[in-house]
Amino acid sequence: MDDLPFLSSGAARAKRDAMSDTPSASGRPEARSPRGFIDRRARDLAAERKILTAVSEVYERHGFEALETGAFEYADALGKFLPDADRPNEGVFALQDDDEQWMALRYDLTAPLARFAAQNWESLPKPFRRYAYGPVWRNEKPGPGRYREFVQCDADTVGSARPEADAEIIAMAVAGLEAAGLPAGTAVLKINNRKLLNGLMSAAGVASEAQKLTVLRAVDKLDRLGPDGVRLLLGEGRKDESGDFTKGAGLTASAAERVLAFTAAGAGASVGDRAATLNALADVVGGSAEGDEGLAELAAIDAALTSLGVGADRALFDPAVVRGLEYYTGAVFEADLLLQTTDEKGQAVRFGSVGGGGRYDDLVARFTGERTPAVGFSFGVTRLAAALRAAGRDLAAEARGPVVVLVLEQSRMADYLSVAGELRAAGIATEVYLGTSGMRPQMKYADRRLSPAAVIIGGDEFAAGTVTIKDLDLGRELASGVTDNAAWRAERPGQLTVARGELVATIRKIVDAGR
Amino acid sequence: MDDLPFLSSGAARAKRDAMSDTPSASGRPEARSPRGFIDRRARDLAAERKILTAVSEVYERHGFEALETGAFEYADALGKFLPDADRPNEGVFALQDDDEQWMALRYDLTAPLARFAAQNWESLPKPFRRYAYGPVWRNEKPGPGRYREFVQCDADTVGSARPEADAEIIAMAVAGLEAAGLPAGTAVLKINNRKLLNGLMSAAGVASEAQKLTVLRAVDKLDRLGPDGVRLLLGEGRKDESGDFTKGAGLTASAAERVLAFTAAGAGASVGDRAATLNALADVVGGSAEGDEGLAELAAIDAALTSLGVGADRALFDPAVVRGLEYYTGAVFEADLLLQTTDEKGQAVRFGSVGGGGRYDDLVARFTGERTPAVGFSFGVTRLAAALRAAGRDLAAEARGPVVVLVLEQSRMADYLSVAGELRAAGIATEVYLGTSGMRPQMKYADRRLSPAAVIIGGDEFAAGTVTIKDLDLGRELASGVTDNAAWRAERPGQLTVARGELVATIRKIVDAGR
Repeated sequence: MDDLPFLSSGAARAKRDAMSDTPSASGRPEARSPRGFIDRRARDLAAERKILTAVSEVYERHGFEALETGAFEYADALGKFLPDADRPNEGVFALQDDDEQWMALRYDLTAPLARFAAQNWESLPKPFRRYAYGPVWRNEKPGPGRYREFVQCDADTVGSARPEADAEIIAMAVAGLEAAGLPAGTAVLKINNRKLLNGLMSAAGVASEAQKLTVLRAVDKLDRLGPDGVRLLLGEGRKDESGDFTKGAGLTASAAERVLAFTAAGAGASVGDRAATLNALADVVGGSAEGDEGLAELAAIDAALTSLGVGADRALFDPAVVRGLEYYTGAVFEADLLLQTTDEKGQAVRFGSVGGGGRYDDLVARFTGERTPAVGFSFGVTRLAAALRAAGRDLAAEARGPVVVLVLEQSRMADYLSVAGELRAAGIATEVYLGTSGMRPQMKYADRRLSPAAVIIGGDEFAAGTVTIKDLDLGRELASGVTDNAAWRAERPGQLTVARGELVATIRKIVDAGR
Repeated sequence: MDDLPFLSSGAARAKRDAMSDTPSASGRPEARSPRGFIDRRARDLAAERKILTAVSEVYERHGFEALETGAFEYADALGKFLPDADRPNEGVFALQDDDEQWMALRYDLTAPLARFAAQNWESLPKPFRRYAYGPVWRNEKPGPGRYREFVQCDADTVGSARPEADAEIIAMAVAGLEAAGLPAGTAVLKINNRKLLNGLMSAAGVASEAQKLTVLRAVDKLDRLGPDGVRLLLGEGRKDESGDFTKGAGLTASAAERVLAFTAAGAGASVGDRAATLNALADVVGGSAEGDEGLAELAAIDAALTSLGVGADRALFDPAVVRGLEYYTGAVFEADLLLQTTDEKGQAVRFGSVGGGGRYDDLVARFTGERTPAVGFSFGVTRLAAALRAAGRDLAAEARGPVVVLVLEQSRMADYLSVAGELRAAGIATEVYLGTSGMRPQMKYADRRLSPAAVIIGGDEFAAGTVTIKDLDLGRELASGVTDNAAWRAERPGQLTVARGELVATIRKIVDAGR
């Protein structure tokens, strides 16, 4: 141990320095967080923790084990983040360790899993199933609702190439969304396959990567521009309302129709029918080797999903999903919210994606040289919590404060503390007011804490062996006008004085009524 | 949104780059974590999560609300970390943001609280009580059991100077340790007060900060050297076994005796009696203004602890606790494990501190210029989990795997998936084996996952409408020799074949038996 333990660590020293910090000429430091980092208080955290608990339970029920890796990985383990510049900060938060090695904060939970799996491959049970949750960091420009730190929750299976592994991940994502508070019918898993797209590209005569990229971009605008707009972008190009011209992919008319037919295979008559979508897709991309492979994988996923009891109302094939297709090597999934939500201006918006995943067979091979099949799914927990809030389906009840025991006679502090201890022992969250203000500010404090009740014991009560209890829940209900004042008053007075021995029972009645 | 969402973010690009990373001439990246960062698997996490859940519940029952701040703070908000050097890394992980401002990962949960409280002071209910847990990072030399990332769990009250606020924090720490799995009597809160120490120093005629530091160092060695060794270090100095001489603090003999009397005030006849300890302390430091103030605070803490039902067996005054005294401004607490634990070499060791805290009235003032009384306590959760493990009081049962459904007939995958779905619906964690190996490796896999049972359905079973179930819990029990082989065999056969309809009931019996 250290020679000087009471001042030992660098951090302790830093703390001491922080304490004795003499303000510079420019004054004291400003109390603010770095851009894109937020403070989350009780209510937000309660919603997030409920999601994580519910989703973790689903994952464990499917045989996935928990794993937490460190916040930092070596930059070379994460990938190519090191340009010629002195400090890399493209997308990640990176810094150099004492030994000059670059390390960076994880930007997702998949890259650390790949490193962990490669490092421990020999000793792991295979296939290796793990789930994980925690913050990830992205060094990007923050914006409204777009943070540089947010919580993800992932499940991955490493070491199985079976389509049933894909289906299992999809089924878990569906079950996870429901466990998180989204009733069946309010979210849907959309499934596509990279190999279908490759089949489409060869069928449509797309030769270069650049042309392929332009096609993908066009398809991704289907929601916004509709088939006619996309048709223009697949061909010569499109002039928008402002007169700006976007150069197209230059496909022939028949090739463009084939691409549109591909994207439409999950729509129309095929909606809600995975087999029908596969048939429609076979007409467009069948015959090419990769297309057939993709179709076979999706057919096996369909069968497995059916065995797992997941119908097309919860997981469907949608070839228009192109997001992430460049990253994944086979199946690709996207979780879409169907709930109508409202934005800050009160306008109805489609919330869109709250998670995604797919098959990535190359990530572990970066370390081991051996191709290792893997498939996974990632919830954006921060985003899902925001979606549930926006949809009015916030799982967390209004963050409820503790019962507050008012301090009216300074000399009776021992009694107030005993009262609080008694309520806590009965499982009721309670605190003694520890400020120095008088009765009115104490009541205001209790109200701001959203306390269910205040316990008032002054000279009269001490003399009579009673306690006065103010029902603050009732006060708030009356104030918000949700209850009929007169009717409630009769059976639930806002304030009542009871014998000291009835304290716990009386408070419990109020707390339970407010649940 | 982005123009190119399927390749949009820097992180997505980084991922793609990572995927297409061509190994350099020196080969593939090595799969390893940065020094001082560890991967934690199911069992460690289960223990840690149980501690956090239990301690959070205690804090919420005392009226403390949850708060999570971001991982980064501006370096000036954390304190003086910026030497003249280009990059600061003394104790913290720091990097420069796009706008050239230095930010650093939090090294504890107190500094971010001070920033948050200062930033939101006007709108917060006061006193402000919050608890928080999460990783903290220290850029220090890692060692055995000493990591650069570990989990802390804190509770603090900001805005109350009352000794009752100190007592409440102490009472919660005591309740938290018990909730975390330490039975009463296996841990103790030791309490001291900075003001007593200051009183002692003036009574002992200590003039300079340097001399004071030497006195503190000497006192901190009491455990190791005993009073005689410390007496030498308080006086002229001490020669150790190797002949090395350590220069002493140079106190007069009577001043040294006074210091020794101070440290012994909590020992001997005073053990387990807070009032007696206070009386003994009054003899040594009473009369100096600061000493009297410290005594009055401790007396009020004693009274409040008694009201809260916390006796001296769980929270005692110990003037020999000097760790952290330089940092805190009033009361200081340390949670000590009394459990005997064994180290890696099997030797009995005193585990020592698993947490600490105290009163720090200056931290918020760094931002606001206004002295804001605050008091808090911090558990080292990673350390506490290690202590519980070392003491054989691991809260987490041996991490139990899921039931594994073996895959023997590839064409019957749908049936295996249905069986798994049925067990999961009954709340039993289950997975279908999704590798490609034969029956023996599948059984081995199930055993390595610590599965309670394997479900075997081959050609015979399908033909007969039955399932064969292998009780793996029993197999492990027999293998470990804890059960009487013959007696168990009679009522609990290792393997049995039952009708398909009895699957869930049979598995449940095995799972429940193993609990």
